[in-house]
Amino acid sequence: IKVDHFGFTTDKTFKQRYLLADEHWKKDDGSILFYTGNEGDIVWFCNNTGFMWDVAEELKAMLVFAEHRYYGESLPFGNDSFKDSRYLNYLTSEQALADFAVLIKYLKRTIPGAKNQPVIALGGSYGGMLAAWFRMKYPHMVVGALAASAPIWHFGNLVPCGVFMKIVTEDFRKSGPNCSETIHNSWGAITRLARTGSGLHWLSEALHLCTPLRNSQDVQHLKGWISETWINLAMVDYPYESNFLQPLPAWPIKVVCKYLNNPSLSDAQLLENIFQALNIYYNYSGQARCLNISETTTSNLGTQGWSYQACTEMVMPFCTNGIDDMFEPRSWNFREYSDDCFKQWGVRPRPTWITTVYGGRNISSHSNIVFSNGELDPWSGGGVTKDITDTLVAITIPEGAHHLDLRARNAFDPTTVLLARSLEVRHMKQWIRDFYASQRKKH
Amino acid sequence: IKVDHFGFTTDKTFKQRYLLADEHWKKDDGSILFYTGNEGDIVWFCNNTGFMWDVAEELKAMLVFAEHRYYGESLPFGNDSFKDSRYLNYLTSEQALADFAVLIKYLKRTIPGAKNQPVIALGGSYGGMLAAWFRMKYPHMVVGALAASAPIWHFGNLVPCGVFMKIVTEDFRKSGPNCSETIHNSWGAITRLARTGSGLHWLSEALHLCTPLRNSQDVQHLKGWISETWINLAMVDYPYESNFLQPLPAWPIKVVCKYLNNPSLSDAQLLENIFQALNIYYNYSGQARCLNISETTTSNLGTQGWSYQACTEMVMPFCTNGIDDMFEPRSWNFREYSDDCFKQWGVRPRPTWITTVYGGRNISSHSNIVFSNGELDPWSGGGVTKDITDTLVAITIPEGAHHLDLRARNAFDPTTVLLARSLEVRHMKQWIRDFYASQRKKH
Repeated sequence: IKVDHFGFTTDKTFKQRYLLADEHWKKDDGSILFYTGNEGDIVWFCNNTGFMWDVAEELKAMLVFAEHRYYGESLPFGNDSFKDSRYLNYLTSEQALADFAVLIKYLKRTIPGAKNQPVIALGGSYGGMLAAWFRMKYPHMVVGALAASAPIWHFGNLVPCGVFMKIVTEDFRKSGPNCSETIHNSWGAITRLARTGSGLHWLSEALHLCTPLRNSQDVQHLKGWISETWINLAMVDYPYESNFLQPLPAWPIKVVCKYLNNPSLSDAQLLENIFQALNIYYNYSGQARCLNISETTTSNLGTQGWSYQACTEMVMPFCTNGIDDMFEPRSWNFREYSDDCFKQWGVRPRPTWITTVYGGRNISSHSNIVFSNGELDPWSGGGVTKDITDTLVAITIPEGAHHLDLRARNAFDPTTVLLARSLEVRHMKQWIRDFYASQRKKH
Repeated sequence: IKVDHFGFTTDKTFKQRYLLADEHWKKDDGSILFYTGNEGDIVWFCNNTGFMWDVAEELKAMLVFAEHRYYGESLPFGNDSFKDSRYLNYLTSEQALADFAVLIKYLKRTIPGAKNQPVIALGGSYGGMLAAWFRMKYPHMVVGALAASAPIWHFGNLVPCGVFMKIVTEDFRKSGPNCSETIHNSWGAITRLARTGSGLHWLSEALHLCTPLRNSQDVQHLKGWISETWINLAMVDYPYESNFLQPLPAWPIKVVCKYLNNPSLSDAQLLENIFQALNIYYNYSGQARCLNISETTTSNLGTQGWSYQACTEMVMPFCTNGIDDMFEPRSWNFREYSDDCFKQWGVRPRPTWITTVYGGRNISSHSNIVFSNGELDPWSGGGVTKDITDTLVAITIPEGAHHLDLRARNAFDPTTVLLARSLEVRHMKQWIRDFYASQRKKH
């Protein structure tokens, strides 16, 4: 694969990893399901996208999982890929989509029987955005796209910047009495405790932190890490035991909220409870000796790469006001954001580019995209949750967290996700049928 | 405008030139006609796209002519732009389309009243391809596109490589008795005359060349230059006196063919007649003292830039066989082509990229594009000449040369071009109506 699809000065190439399964594939009237890999190791996404495996037989489908450049083993400049902004210059969604296009062309050319088959793009989260954008930009390559939990409108001013944290808060509010209030009150408790050296020491001990807190910067970092934990819990609030970002019990927010039912405790008691709650997320397996506030999720996600992407194209405004949400108020400060990006990566974000290139809310002239969103998923706030046209369809899953529908079928799946999946399959079958019908008309 | 829309390492910007006319523009129910500039000075295209001026009042339209980067005065690296392949790295159609998108967003933001108006892309030749591709890739930016004489299928193996020269030949065959045969025979006559030094001398004199021929390489060059002259005549075979590539009489091929009606003359007599024919093209004004075989067209076209583009993305296979056409046989040799590109620009062409990124023949999921083609125009061989869907429409103009429909109305216009233009206007009005109807529905 070319490192630069959009320029010709460098002729450099790199190896893109992809996984392929053709157990249920039929050469005659089959199809190709193409996972548009996102910001992480493709093997891990492959293992967390059971839906594709579950429907492979029904759709007579070959499964392809394409790894996104700069993640997993698809590193254009090997171990140097993140060393320098010159090496990172080719980490963009446009290059990734071009990779997918070139890969599909390659597979169709080299796999006997694949040439005249319909391809469907699938993806979740950023991968879901890529699936939708791929159908928009390369409709000649894929007959349709399933974009699960894809916040394609979490850019510019398309949605209010507070929508994300409001949904997180709502999840906690619904999962246990006083749960969101307790968290809301915890920030002040931390602030008060952190005022003295002994308070810092106590906090570090009470939260079993691997590295003790030393100053107010550490405390800010702690608060950010705790916030991210609640966010991640909202994303993976699945109805059964799972291991996506961390090993977790069924309905983890409910479990967490059991410890967070009394917002009126003393600061110290409140923080003891917060520790119990965090411990569910970070130590469900009981293996962790201490909590490491520099990590929140699986290492299968490429945080470096995403940090760069967030500093260039993927500028998603977030804010909180502490009233509609349970977090400390924080406005969206683009200038500060941009300065941080420049410090870290030597680049400045272009916040209007994504809507310029992918259309913002004005996408009605496209077709054959299913947008699915779980109502528990904070990302649904930036997602497409209403039908746009007959063929740009929204499916919402009231009991669904982040792309629950893409996960393997499970005995504890709520009915709504089963319905969502069967609707998704119906759309995909329709796209496949339409494809073969138009093929026949040509001959 | 950013020099690189698809990467973030360089934050460099440049000034893109555009021309704007709002004499007939209405803020209430008007429209914006946006010329997607091609490989040349935008002022010159503006002066040769009278159609837009002719319909401005009827469509209450603002006219915008956007200059393509690396042409005219829109040079990202000033006078150095062509010095080095590193500077040329940003000369691609994808960057040009992104320029147009950013410019439209800018105009809508800064011109009061423009924000909620429908934009229509128009262009001819490569500019026509850009207009079509712009609607395909940025359908949220333009409600439709008029792509005049746009050979979007003259890539890969989408059409036979001989189709272009066959149409050129057909034009000459139809324009005078024995005309194409005479040209066909001229190549052998040149070869025979060029065998001796005195023959070379005689040829140089007979053709009034500014620089005498010295060797067989010069003779090859001469043949190429003559071929290009016939090609250009086919492109600008307009029904009235005009000055597009050169000042010319009405139906110039007919005029030229008057000198080319006897294929059986002696070699010397044949070449005397060829000179008379060439002289029509190069010296209609009577000002030229001699013919310069290193020039064929107006300097308003950026031949350097186009040469680079042809060596990267814009790989159009051409061939002749001397049987279906009047030229010396020459097969399409990609290896040789690529080596020449590497020598000249230090880049290698990627012949499959354009069809990968813009869809090749598989464009039926797009909408609202009118493809117009003149049957006299050799580029029509790679154009869309049949309707693809109800909203991807082909209009053919039997008496039309290269984008005749985009030229200013003229008393000598054939009926077919008048019909074509009125159809084009009807489509544009429909797009504008649909746009305002959907706007009203939203509120």
